[in-house]
Amino acid sequence: MISKNQISFVRSLQQKKYRLKYGCFVAEGNKIVVELLNSNWAVEQIFATNFFIEKFKIDVKKNNINIVSKIEIEKISGLFSPTDAIAIVKIPTAKIPDFNTVSWSLALDDIQDPGNLGTIIRTADWFGVKQIFLSENCVDVYNSKTIQASMGSFLRVNFFETNLSALIEEKKFKQIAVAVMDGQNIFNTTFEKSGLMIVGNEGNGVSEKIISMADLKITIPKIGQAESLNVAVAAGIVCSCIVK
Amino acid sequence: MISKNQISFVRSLQQKKYRLKYGCFVAEGNKIVVELLNSNWAVEQIFATNFFIEKFKIDVKKNNINIVSKIEIEKISGLFSPTDAIAIVKIPTAKIPDFNTVSWSLALDDIQDPGNLGTIIRTADWFGVKQIFLSENCVDVYNSKTIQASMGSFLRVNFFETNLSALIEEKKFKQIAVAVMDGQNIFNTTFEKSGLMIVGNEGNGVSEKIISMADLKITIPKIGQAESLNVAVAAGIVCSCIVK
Repeated sequence: MISKNQISFVRSLQQKKYRLKYGCFVAEGNKIVVELLNSNWAVEQIFATNFFIEKFKIDVKKNNINIVSKIEIEKISGLFSPTDAIAIVKIPTAKIPDFNTVSWSLALDDIQDPGNLGTIIRTADWFGVKQIFLSENCVDVYNSKTIQASMGSFLRVNFFETNLSALIEEKKFKQIAVAVMDGQNIFNTTFEKSGLMIVGNEGNGVSEKIISMADLKITIPKIGQAESLNVAVAAGIVCSCIVK
Repeated sequence: MISKNQISFVRSLQQKKYRLKYGCFVAEGNKIVVELLNSNWAVEQIFATNFFIEKFKIDVKKNNINIVSKIEIEKISGLFSPTDAIAIVKIPTAKIPDFNTVSWSLALDDIQDPGNLGTIIRTADWFGVKQIFLSENCVDVYNSKTIQASMGSFLRVNFFETNLSALIEEKKFKQIAVAVMDGQNIFNTTFEKSGLMIVGNEGNGVSEKIISMADLKITIPKIGQAESLNVAVAAGIVCSCIVK
């Protein structure tokens, strides 16, 4: 059973101001909820159908599951095609970046689309990129579409909302690279073993100020005629080049 | 002005059966409609606001524009955030594949998400991949979300809905490569100058039958922990490797 208050509470978490107010976010999807149950993340509430509980052999008491019908799930879901489980998860306290890491970190300047951000998180996780720095104007990591598109990878990548120019000025990275339209061919570039790779906004790319602060400007060479690449695709190609 | 009949006609084109029945599809977005007007595609109708006409200096008479209000655009739009112009475009007759092309072609086995397909089309266009073969179960190219995500690249890439195993059996390509989870490292692979690269379904990858018919199985090596890559990101990385 789910009360009216619970419905409006879960729905309110679709908005960032309520996520900040209550300090929690919504994670939807059977696989993600199972991963959450097996993680050390603070899961505050779970709404799940009997189908989910039986399929994944979930201990209802131990995990404090609120058993609901599919119709009730639909009432609180932010998805077009709701699944069978929704978790309300505590937003973790900000970690401290690891500047001694031996791998590359990503920085995202003003990414606006939650699906793109989620896909970038998933890609970073695939390539072993463990840290993502987000400019203050980026879409929120805890947006439910971002969480959904990350396919559980938000559990394994660390995020830092930060002022990117201040971050660069700290000179903590061996190399600061930036993806632009007129840089050197990324496929002919040899990268340092670690550094910070900056990818920018869907329409405008990386801001001029940040570009001017980078050590290295790289470009994915265009052979055909498309005006631009989708930013998640571009980030994927960039990640494949910096880690190999 | 837009009539009730026109509203229901345009809305019906969100469904494939009506696209097939009427032989046309919807293309939304200011840039896409401008590109269409400058192309040799058969545009049957255009609904646009005065803002669009003034901004892009469109000749209303010559282009037979139906001037509508933003509210009317919203009534016929399939987008969450409608723009100022919607075109009804004739589905072109199927072209004949060019097997003498000097570049690689893509084949998509059972891609289901229209946004993914559109992003793959856009990426193919960036990398100069001019032909995409789609298995019979792929989402429709003329789905309005696909058209939207392709950002105009559907105008420059040729599509062929086909039986992929029959296509492979014709032995028209120098090399048939397939993206799988257990193939050789794509970054250490030298490709022929041209060939067919097959990428598969979001959840299940390329079907076993098609895999068994390929000359070469390649993999984007996983360094981190994500279970998989988004298919459009994977296709982007694959394209970057076959064309360079």
